[in-house]
Amino acid sequence: MKILWVFAHPERRSLGGSLMTEGLRTLESLGHEHRTSDLYGMGWKAVVDADDFGDAPRDRRLLVGPEQERAYRERSLSEDVRREQEKIEWADTLVFQFPLWWFGPPAILKGWFDRVLVQGFGFGLKGPDGRTLRYGDGGLAGKRALVVTSVGARESGFGPRGIHGQLDQVLFPLLHGTFWYTGMAALPPFVVYGADRLTDTGFAHSAAQLRERLRTLPTTSPLPFHDENGGAYDEDLVLRPELAPGLSGVGVHG
Amino acid sequence: MKILWVFAHPERRSLGGSLMTEGLRTLESLGHEHRTSDLYGMGWKAVVDADDFGDAPRDRRLLVGPEQERAYRERSLSEDVRREQEKIEWADTLVFQFPLWWFGPPAILKGWFDRVLVQGFGFGLKGPDGRTLRYGDGGLAGKRALVVTSVGARESGFGPRGIHGQLDQVLFPLLHGTFWYTGMAALPPFVVYGADRLTDTGFAHSAAQLRERLRTLPTTSPLPFHDENGGAYDEDLVLRPELAPGLSGVGVHG
Repeated sequence: MKILWVFAHPERRSLGGSLMTEGLRTLESLGHEHRTSDLYGMGWKAVVDADDFGDAPRDRRLLVGPEQERAYRERSLSEDVRREQEKIEWADTLVFQFPLWWFGPPAILKGWFDRVLVQGFGFGLKGPDGRTLRYGDGGLAGKRALVVTSVGARESGFGPRGIHGQLDQVLFPLLHGTFWYTGMAALPPFVVYGADRLTDTGFAHSAAQLRERLRTLPTTSPLPFHDENGGAYDEDLVLRPELAPGLSGVGVHG
Repeated sequence: MKILWVFAHPERRSLGGSLMTEGLRTLESLGHEHRTSDLYGMGWKAVVDADDFGDAPRDRRLLVGPEQERAYRERSLSEDVRREQEKIEWADTLVFQFPLWWFGPPAILKGWFDRVLVQGFGFGLKGPDGRTLRYGDGGLAGKRALVVTSVGARESGFGPRGIHGQLDQVLFPLLHGTFWYTGMAALPPFVVYGADRLTDTGFAHSAAQLRERLRTLPTTSPLPFHDENGGAYDEDLVLRPELAPGLSGVGVHG
C-alpha cells in the first residue's frame, strides 16, 4: 500500500508524535510505502486567500470555488498546494492524525482541507451522464481515509449518549462531509481517550492497538455511508423513507 | 446590547460581506453597540504554536492546554489573542459569520477558537464545590452566540434526512462543543442556502430575514442543550435514561 500520513500537532515530542513514529515503523515493517505531511514541521499555510492563486487579478471579487478550480486546471495553484495534491494522487490510503481541538481538527489541518481539496480535484467532477460525482464517488474515489486522534476526555463521554456527543457523529463533517464527499471510504476512527493522563502502560496499549489497526488497514470495513448516486436519496437529496425509517439526524446516513 | 461580530471570509465584496454590512447597520439602528473582528482583514494568525506564549522555553515539550492557561494567567499570551479575549469580555452576544467550508468554519475561524478560547479563560474553570464548569456554565456563561453562515447547497440537503446532514447536528462541534461548552447559549443558526446562485431578490429576502433575526437576538430561545451540572448526566457523563429514552447520537443533547 501507499500511505500518506498527515500529522497536525505543534509538538513532535508529544504523545501524538510518539504514536506517529510507532505507526510509520509499523507501516515499514508491513512492507508498505509511506510519505508524510508534518503540517507544523512544514510551516503549512492554513488560510485560503488570493495568494493561493498567484495569477488571479486582485481588483475583482474573489470567488473561492471557481478560482480554485481555474487555478487547478491551469496548474497555477501555489506550489505547496500542488505538492500535497500530488501526494494524494500517489497514495491509496490517507491517515490524518491530530489532537481533537474544539471537537474538530486543529486549524492547520482544517486549512489543509480548505486549500488542497479544491473544486475540480477533490470534488465538482461530473460523470459521463452529467451527474455530480460526490459522496462515494469523485476525485478521490477508491482511496481510504483513517482518522487517528487523541482526546483528553474519557471514552464514556463520547459514547452513544455521552455528553461530548457520539464520536463518529461529532466527526461527521470530516468522515462524511470530507472523506466520503470526495469519494474516499471513511474507516472507523482510531481514538486515544484520556490522552492527558496516559501512563506508560496506557501508551503501550494504545500503540499496540494502533499497530493492529494499521495491520488491518486494507481489510477493515469502512463506515457504511450511502452512495449519492446509488438510489438511497431522492431528487431533493433526502434519504428515501424505506432507509432508516422514522429516524432523522446525521446518524441516518450510515 | 454589546455585540462582537466575527467575520471569516476572504472577500469583503462577497455575499457574506454585504450581509455583514446589512447586519451591522441593523444593529446600529436598533441602538446596540458593536465591535468587529474581520479575521482576514486583520491578518489573523490561524495556527496555535509556541509563538502564542512568547516566554515559553523552546527546549522543552510544548503542552498546549497547560501552556495556554499559564500564559493566560500571567498575561503573557500574544497581544492579538488578548485583544480578542478583551472583546469577548466586553460583549454579551457573539456573532460568527462564515461560509461553510467542508461542513465547518474556515481554518482562520477555527484558529480563532483554538487560540482565543484558552484553558482558564474559555473553559477549565471550577465552581466553589470543585465541579468543572462546562456545558452551560464556564468562562463565557451568560453570553449568547449566533452562527450566520452561507452554503451552496439547497435547504433540503441539510434537512433532518438530507444528504449533507441535519444542519444543527453538522454544526454540533461549534454549537454544543464550543459555544455551550464555554457556557454560551447557542442560538439557532442563521443560514443562507443556495448562496452560489443567489439572485438580487434572494439576497433581499436573506437580508430581511437577517434583520429580523437580529431584532429578536435578545429574545430568541437558544437551542435546548442540557447543563452538565444540572442532573441530566450521570457520573460517567452519559445522559440519564429517562431523557430522550431509547435514542442515541448527538441529537439526544438538546
